[in-house]
Amino acid sequence: MKNFSFKVLKKSKKSKARLGILKTPHGEIKTPAFVVVGTKGTVKSLAPEDLDEVGTQMIFVNTYHTVLSPGVDIIEKAGGIHKFCRIKQPIITDSGGFQVFSLARRSFNEGGTGDLKRRVRFLQSEDKSIAPLVKITDDGVEFRSPVDGRKFFFTPEFSIEAQKKIGSDLMVAFDECTYYGASYKYAKNAMERTHKWAIRGLKASEIKEKQGLYGVVQGGMFEDLRKESAKFISSLPFFGLAIGGVSVGETKKEMREQVSWAMNVIGEDERSRHLLGVGEIDDVFDAVKIGIDTMDCVIPTRHARMGKLYKYEISNIKNQKYISKIKNIEEINIMKNLYKEDLNQIDKCCQCYTCCNFTRAYLHHLFKQRELLGYHLATIHNLFFFERLFENLRSLIENDQF
Amino acid sequence: MKNFSFKVLKKSKKSKARLGILKTPHGEIKTPAFVVVGTKGTVKSLAPEDLDEVGTQMIFVNTYHTVLSPGVDIIEKAGGIHKFCRIKQPIITDSGGFQVFSLARRSFNEGGTGDLKRRVRFLQSEDKSIAPLVKITDDGVEFRSPVDGRKFFFTPEFSIEAQKKIGSDLMVAFDECTYYGASYKYAKNAMERTHKWAIRGLKASEIKEKQGLYGVVQGGMFEDLRKESAKFISSLPFFGLAIGGVSVGETKKEMREQVSWAMNVIGEDERSRHLLGVGEIDDVFDAVKIGIDTMDCVIPTRHARMGKLYKYEISNIKNQKYISKIKNIEEINIMKNLYKEDLNQIDKCCQCYTCCNFTRAYLHHLFKQRELLGYHLATIHNLFFFERLFENLRSLIENDQF
Repeated sequence: MKNFSFKVLKKSKKSKARLGILKTPHGEIKTPAFVVVGTKGTVKSLAPEDLDEVGTQMIFVNTYHTVLSPGVDIIEKAGGIHKFCRIKQPIITDSGGFQVFSLARRSFNEGGTGDLKRRVRFLQSEDKSIAPLVKITDDGVEFRSPVDGRKFFFTPEFSIEAQKKIGSDLMVAFDECTYYGASYKYAKNAMERTHKWAIRGLKASEIKEKQGLYGVVQGGMFEDLRKESAKFISSLPFFGLAIGGVSVGETKKEMREQVSWAMNVIGEDERSRHLLGVGEIDDVFDAVKIGIDTMDCVIPTRHARMGKLYKYEISNIKNQKYISKIKNIEEINIMKNLYKEDLNQIDKCCQCYTCCNFTRAYLHHLFKQRELLGYHLATIHNLFFFERLFENLRSLIENDQF
Repeated sequence: MKNFSFKVLKKSKKSKARLGILKTPHGEIKTPAFVVVGTKGTVKSLAPEDLDEVGTQMIFVNTYHTVLSPGVDIIEKAGGIHKFCRIKQPIITDSGGFQVFSLARRSFNEGGTGDLKRRVRFLQSEDKSIAPLVKITDDGVEFRSPVDGRKFFFTPEFSIEAQKKIGSDLMVAFDECTYYGASYKYAKNAMERTHKWAIRGLKASEIKEKQGLYGVVQGGMFEDLRKESAKFISSLPFFGLAIGGVSVGETKKEMREQVSWAMNVIGEDERSRHLLGVGEIDDVFDAVKIGIDTMDCVIPTRHARMGKLYKYEISNIKNQKYISKIKNIEEINIMKNLYKEDLNQIDKCCQCYTCCNFTRAYLHHLFKQRELLGYHLATIHNLFFFERLFENLRSLIENDQF
């Protein structure tokens, strides 16, 4: 694994937060780091150069979406995802599990009921008459594309093969993402399947020189399962450890509990830890505090496209580097009439392209008129804000202030 | 008018095409030139720097849309449209007439009939019960915003005042844009009103140091009216002459006739001539040939967002500079399955950012998935293509080959 390494540089004296450096063939990532979601091989509304400009360290691409379109063969033919999409940053792909199992839930919901008990009964019975799109077995998941009806069979081996063709720097082993509300029995089965799939994934992943593999901790909402899963997954020779299935409908409290149970078991493990699909502002603080190294989330980019923009609430800042108290961060809705004639920049402290060049009034106008430039400028701002936030957190850890 | 000048540098020996230089406070424009439409103060999907990169010489902003949102007062407060939108290029604003009269037609259509005869009868009768949105008098046009119902009264003076607040380099006098299918009587009335409004517009436009005013030739589909209008408008001391109302539903043949009638009268007039709202590829060739200096059109940008991309059809080109035969230009639809695995760039001859970096397969994927980056990359390509086309046409005129 000479192209890959993760090294913990420093552990905070005040929390479990740690500073690290994650080396990949496409560059080094200073951790804790935010991983920007570019689901379909593009961070929505941004060109590759914009990612460089906002300081993006790593991109998250979804294997499920990429298999469906454009297809992994054309990406391989183009020389891999970096060349195909002209992205310079290291890329991590997920296993496809999250989407495949969401599809199962979706086809169920489309069956016409939202009742939790019936839903659980259904998901456990695998009733084909209600869920024609998805069939789950120990071997893998068979499903039809909701777009064009093509049939796919996701297995641990297929997932790895797809991720190899995509050519990401970091891969994730195929896992069964337990749905919110699943029973103990269901979560236990799913966890055990995930563990078997983890071993199959490791076996299928041979080109260790080129791509590093993460195992995924599952276990639903149950403490003993989460701990068992963390213990098992961390006992395997993965390059990194991921925590999955914690953003499928939980309350913040539940989500944090689940992550904590796993992190308590992983403890002093020196491998990098990725938290899958989590990253609202408050989550960032808590995740970093308990030792998460990287995390991906659609929130900053999705919120940007909804006109929700981050800013620091305080007006007079002495040392920008250490602005990192969550109570000082506010999310404004640029669509509000209040900004119609506001010639200030979004955030007084911000040095991003958007803040350096455009006023709230112009952004308000662009959003009101649904102009594409609005989504672009907002996304640049939110991602720049996030990178600065993580930079601040790293500084704080460096100085034992976090 | 020291900040403004237009000079004809050369007249073609083979046609009425001419080379010129149009000087404005925001820079010089080499003519013939394409004017990129940025209706609401943004060229859809592009940031200001992208306009620099594709070589845009001038931007067209619509006064009607700008009055409605963000409003001209906030633009004035921000220091003018260039500062508000961070656009460096010279900007021309239209009078608002086209949209206001489109609104009249729309409210009629919303009244529930598409029958041409009834439509004409209606538009001539100004029946308020069918068209509550718009009221046309000799003084101006009163209407309600179709968005929020606010009442506006567009007059020649209001139009100029709005354009002054916007702070465009070039303004257009308020005109009545005749609808397609209008009778001789209606077109004559509209033309006469336009002429009266032209004089009022000239009077209202005082700050000649800062903004240059164009008068608009109208006259509908009637040769004698077009000629009369061209004669009258060109007799007034406008900075430039515009031809309007030729893209409201005509066939290409009708449109060209109308432009030719006017251009034959304008003849050797040395002022710059702008053709309003025309600019498909074939139109460009014909318009330049009869002496049009500048023209604006949404087609290259709108088509880009539909995945329709320009390319040269010929594969082996010896001298790129002189590729300007219309038969060699093709418009491809990137959505077609044919491009799904095509790793070529859109146009082999093209040096635009999109062609230098991305394949047809990636663009196909982005368009299929409705990813915002697709619209951005396609717009860059089409505008770069248009600028190169105009550059080629200027070279041909320079060398008496057009």
